[in-house]
Amino acid sequence: MTAAPPNDLPLALTMGEPAGVGGEIGLKAWLARDEAGLRPFVILDDPARLAALAASIGLPVPVQAVTSPQEGAALFGRALPVLPVTLGNPVVAGRPDPANGAAVIASIDRAVALVQGGQAAAVVTNPIQKSSLYAAGFRHPGHTEYLAHLAGLTDEPIMMLAAADLRVVPVTIHVSVRDAVNQLTTEAIVHAGRVTAASLARNFGIDRPRLAVAGLNPHAGEGGAMGREEIDIIEPAIATLRADGIDVSGPRPPDTMFHAAARRGYDAALCMYHDQALIPVKTVDFDSGVNITLGLPFVRTSPDHGTALDIAGTGKANATSLIAALKTADRMARNRQRTAGF
Amino acid sequence: MTAAPPNDLPLALTMGEPAGVGGEIGLKAWLARDEAGLRPFVILDDPARLAALAASIGLPVPVQAVTSPQEGAALFGRALPVLPVTLGNPVVAGRPDPANGAAVIASIDRAVALVQGGQAAAVVTNPIQKSSLYAAGFRHPGHTEYLAHLAGLTDEPIMMLAAADLRVVPVTIHVSVRDAVNQLTTEAIVHAGRVTAASLARNFGIDRPRLAVAGLNPHAGEGGAMGREEIDIIEPAIATLRADGIDVSGPRPPDTMFHAAARRGYDAALCMYHDQALIPVKTVDFDSGVNITLGLPFVRTSPDHGTALDIAGTGKANATSLIAALKTADRMARNRQRTAGF
Repeated sequence: MTAAPPNDLPLALTMGEPAGVGGEIGLKAWLARDEAGLRPFVILDDPARLAALAASIGLPVPVQAVTSPQEGAALFGRALPVLPVTLGNPVVAGRPDPANGAAVIASIDRAVALVQGGQAAAVVTNPIQKSSLYAAGFRHPGHTEYLAHLAGLTDEPIMMLAAADLRVVPVTIHVSVRDAVNQLTTEAIVHAGRVTAASLARNFGIDRPRLAVAGLNPHAGEGGAMGREEIDIIEPAIATLRADGIDVSGPRPPDTMFHAAARRGYDAALCMYHDQALIPVKTVDFDSGVNITLGLPFVRTSPDHGTALDIAGTGKANATSLIAALKTADRMARNRQRTAGF
Repeated sequence: MTAAPPNDLPLALTMGEPAGVGGEIGLKAWLARDEAGLRPFVILDDPARLAALAASIGLPVPVQAVTSPQEGAALFGRALPVLPVTLGNPVVAGRPDPANGAAVIASIDRAVALVQGGQAAAVVTNPIQKSSLYAAGFRHPGHTEYLAHLAGLTDEPIMMLAAADLRVVPVTIHVSVRDAVNQLTTEAIVHAGRVTAASLARNFGIDRPRLAVAGLNPHAGEGGAMGREEIDIIEPAIATLRADGIDVSGPRPPDTMFHAAARRGYDAALCMYHDQALIPVKTVDFDSGVNITLGLPFVRTSPDHGTALDIAGTGKANATSLIAALKTADRMARNRQRTAGF
């Protein structure tokens, strides 16, 4: 395990797709630093292009190239610190350029190296445009898998979406509903449950995490009348997690487990498919959801939205989710430090 | 089409499973009649058992047997009017008795006869316990199908769930997720869309209803990358509905269509499976959701919960959903009157 980072280290924020909104929301997050009580962060990006972007959309952000995260943390109060990454081509808002793919990847690589080298507290990633990276030779299904690769991880990392008062973990993710049903296994639920429970303790400061496991089917199958996955797949996973000593309830009827009173009864919901997890989170808290990767040897969070190419460069991007991702990364890093002997 | 009922007709509220909470929430709804601005209603139930129930849980409700809905409407301000239905056995709270199944069914039959005979404005049904009715010889999958049978309907009726600011219509309902995927057809989506659009105009006073059609898969399939149902099944249904002149959007990514701002963009969401519809409704408004049957020749609403046998007879039942069902039935009946020539 990487040692927990001291509280004075900054967060490392990646560039993400430079033709998207990542730069703009980074500038806006810096402007909100006092109001939001943000831990200092450094962006791994091109300082000149960020300064030009700030000028073009009228944001009063002094951009300052730095040579180390420590230098960045020291001047964060008066300028946005940027660790330079060299772009292949000038950025055109809204038009990803494969010639910049190498820079996008270098930004991620460097952020991970900083956190693994004890120079940054956590990695916060801006959204990437996969199609553009593929054209640049990127060979991973997505951000999360690439981070797992950089960390030398063999187990599958787990995705958590966290809103103000609801954390959800989809056991199957970016597959069709039909494939989610076909691919659901007891092993995958157990793995997600174990990683989630351990992370709630280590990163969220919850000593005895309570997991709520959703059924797959309406009314959790009603004893097999509407699907047998609860009986054949989900209940055995719950039994295994309980045997581990984890506080687990379920399989719960999916439609009645996400209202405000029900949410107070657990610390995270394990969901069987993408939209079972994402519909409740995005319905109750559309703007400030945070994407968190569990099971990595370091803290990684991300805003819960894409590159928003359609509004890139216009000044209309909403930084709420990135600010929430920066705050969540800070809290997680602090908790890791507190539970470092855990 | 049944003629729209005049505004002075009462609503007909069925007994539902007498061992459940139906009686109690009926009594509580009557107590809330002024505060909630309820249209008069008559309950089709056993007056003596309701009076005994009111006494046992300490509700100050004078129960009055009546011989007609009109008589009931006239005295609604000072007593709860009950059109007598004869029970087979004394009711034991929490323990459904098949000997009372015939009375449960008679209560539904009589409510439908009243609304079809122009003596009641709408049918509001209390929850039934299907297992108990099956033991009494009931041969219909559920309430809705039985009402369709009584109405002589050949088309499939459509279920709508309505919360404060969200109406959803599941195209497939009480089947497993696997079966929902297998059973989803263009025809079923078109039928649900037509019935929903017509009902929004006729019963909800919305002149040009806007329907939002959900995708089935995450991100609405992302152009076929995560499932082809959007392309093969849902998009053709949307094209047909548009050719009908209906204002339809979609297929929409399911996770981003239910937050507050998105909800303002449509009058009803067509959902591809039970929990895609029920998770958002019950997450945003757990207590006051109303179940509405569309496509019947009369108005029928119902509270959006079951018989709650575990708390029956304790006085703990929450009448919020029944009160919402009574108010919704009233509004729908008024709109039908207004649009009677429609």
